[in-house]
Amino acid sequence: MATLADIAKRAGVSVATASRVINNRGYLSAQTKAKVLAAMKELNYQPNNLARSLHGKQTHLVGVIVPTIANPFFAELVSKIERALFAIGDKMILCNANYNLEKERNYLRMLIANQVDGIISGGHNLGIEEYQQSGLPIVTFDRHLADNVPIVSCNNYQGMQLATRRLIADGCTAIHFLGNQHQKGNPTDQRLSAYQDTVRQAGMESRVHSVAFSDSASLKKAMIEDILKSERADGFVCTDDLTAILLLNEAHTLGIRVPEDLKVVGFDGTELVRTYHPELTTVVQPIDDIAQLLVHLLQQRVQDPNCQFSKLYYQLPVSLVRRQTA
Amino acid sequence: MATLADIAKRAGVSVATASRVINNRGYLSAQTKAKVLAAMKELNYQPNNLARSLHGKQTHLVGVIVPTIANPFFAELVSKIERALFAIGDKMILCNANYNLEKERNYLRMLIANQVDGIISGGHNLGIEEYQQSGLPIVTFDRHLADNVPIVSCNNYQGMQLATRRLIADGCTAIHFLGNQHQKGNPTDQRLSAYQDTVRQAGMESRVHSVAFSDSASLKKAMIEDILKSERADGFVCTDDLTAILLLNEAHTLGIRVPEDLKVVGFDGTELVRTYHPELTTVVQPIDDIAQLLVHLLQQRVQDPNCQFSKLYYQLPVSLVRRQTA
Repeated sequence: MATLADIAKRAGVSVATASRVINNRGYLSAQTKAKVLAAMKELNYQPNNLARSLHGKQTHLVGVIVPTIANPFFAELVSKIERALFAIGDKMILCNANYNLEKERNYLRMLIANQVDGIISGGHNLGIEEYQQSGLPIVTFDRHLADNVPIVSCNNYQGMQLATRRLIADGCTAIHFLGNQHQKGNPTDQRLSAYQDTVRQAGMESRVHSVAFSDSASLKKAMIEDILKSERADGFVCTDDLTAILLLNEAHTLGIRVPEDLKVVGFDGTELVRTYHPELTTVVQPIDDIAQLLVHLLQQRVQDPNCQFSKLYYQLPVSLVRRQTA
Repeated sequence: MATLADIAKRAGVSVATASRVINNRGYLSAQTKAKVLAAMKELNYQPNNLARSLHGKQTHLVGVIVPTIANPFFAELVSKIERALFAIGDKMILCNANYNLEKERNYLRMLIANQVDGIISGGHNLGIEEYQQSGLPIVTFDRHLADNVPIVSCNNYQGMQLATRRLIADGCTAIHFLGNQHQKGNPTDQRLSAYQDTVRQAGMESRVHSVAFSDSASLKKAMIEDILKSERADGFVCTDDLTAILLLNEAHTLGIRVPEDLKVVGFDGTELVRTYHPELTTVVQPIDDIAQLLVHLLQQRVQDPNCQFSKLYYQLPVSLVRRQTA
């Protein structure tokens, strides 16, 4: 098994420098970083294995990677994961990846180097090959990272189908889709498919407005204002509640009456949004169940790295909460 | 220096059992826990010191204790602390204490046992003597934990004075206070004092409605409904934005017009609330500056545990953002 000294030698740097690259600490030139990372890859270096075998025990630390807890959905998910981990005596290292590929990669490298027992990832940056090479137990939320990595999701298709059918039942004839329209092979892609299938089955045309999850709120706001001014929609399904709230605020500003002239359904249904925006009809994800299943699956892999699950893709049921906006 | 074996011997238990108590892992009787904790206290056991001297280095892990990141204010604060820690190569162990004294105490014990470099605490459970005994560098947000522990706060007095003066300038004559009215020796106590001083100086009577930060939203909602039905207020200063939003929602339900019949000012001013509740006039805490100062002070103590600060109580300036509710 390759050691840190092997990496340093191969890269032509000191052991201290190699360690600093792995731990992302101190100033390092791009060239030095690249050399060390190439050497790590060539030698398939897994820094945790040695330390782990030396210590011969679990660290009871779990890395949790999300885009950002400044988003209430991830704040609630992380808070429930924290509770589930605490109940089994584990602690969480929180990593906000911030839609930043390099930050997610750095965190991943640090988690591997610092001997966490495993990783729960809901990061939005795909194509990070370190996930495949980490040698650590990993489970993901809503993301396809690698073939052997279990995924936990809500039933995204069912959710958007419920939302679209609600608007059809309410008599809407021009139902538009607002939000993420990415199709990158993730479970959340199904939200768009469900919308498209459902309006087509009802004999309507689909109309998709792309607002990326990572766009700033002020950019989203400007785009929504344009959409409301130029389109003749009488219903919107949104891929998340915050986008739905921006839409409601803009409609209010423009004097469009909800639900009379425009009906809106959100997606996520956090406790926060349901409490402080009691008017919003939305699809509620079972966040607590998702958190508990993530922790449970990870725990099984930590205890037996070779354990095989009966399935690798878990879809938990959602519900639609009817309020005033639809 | 006492070792784990000394603790086990004094408590009359095995070393494995003593370790499990310290790490809060596995089932343990209350009696066993009490014996081990008493032995730890008698021998002033600080589990991290030994491990630290063995390893001879920092762990680059920092424990962050808050009530819960399900509250957007703490989510935003933690997210900014995480960013500041990441910038210096440190990682965060996130601890939601959930207004639960025992959970906070357990976390604190685990953080000490697991050799974090230091702790940033914004927990709401006071009187935890382990904070004094931890032997770790600690800084707090908004909480007085011990005489030598630096506190970072916004200027709470200035904030509530600005809010109250805004309502006076708007012509309000019956300004009520809604929120936490605790007086436990914390910086946040000043919000009540500032309100009381300011209305008195304007020749008005003060009227305080106590809604605890830890009350559930549905309880707060019921209390606010009662207050709005039974009181003749024309202005409210609230100790946090979420309470202000509940108040606005209840006023809307009861047909009370804002700002015509009732004016409202919140407190905290997270990006989330300013974006999704653009109507709310509120006192904005400098959350990013608070996070950076917390990390900076902690870092100084980690590098030199005996370093003395020029002061131990830092109050950062706030601002009032005028929108539609006042």
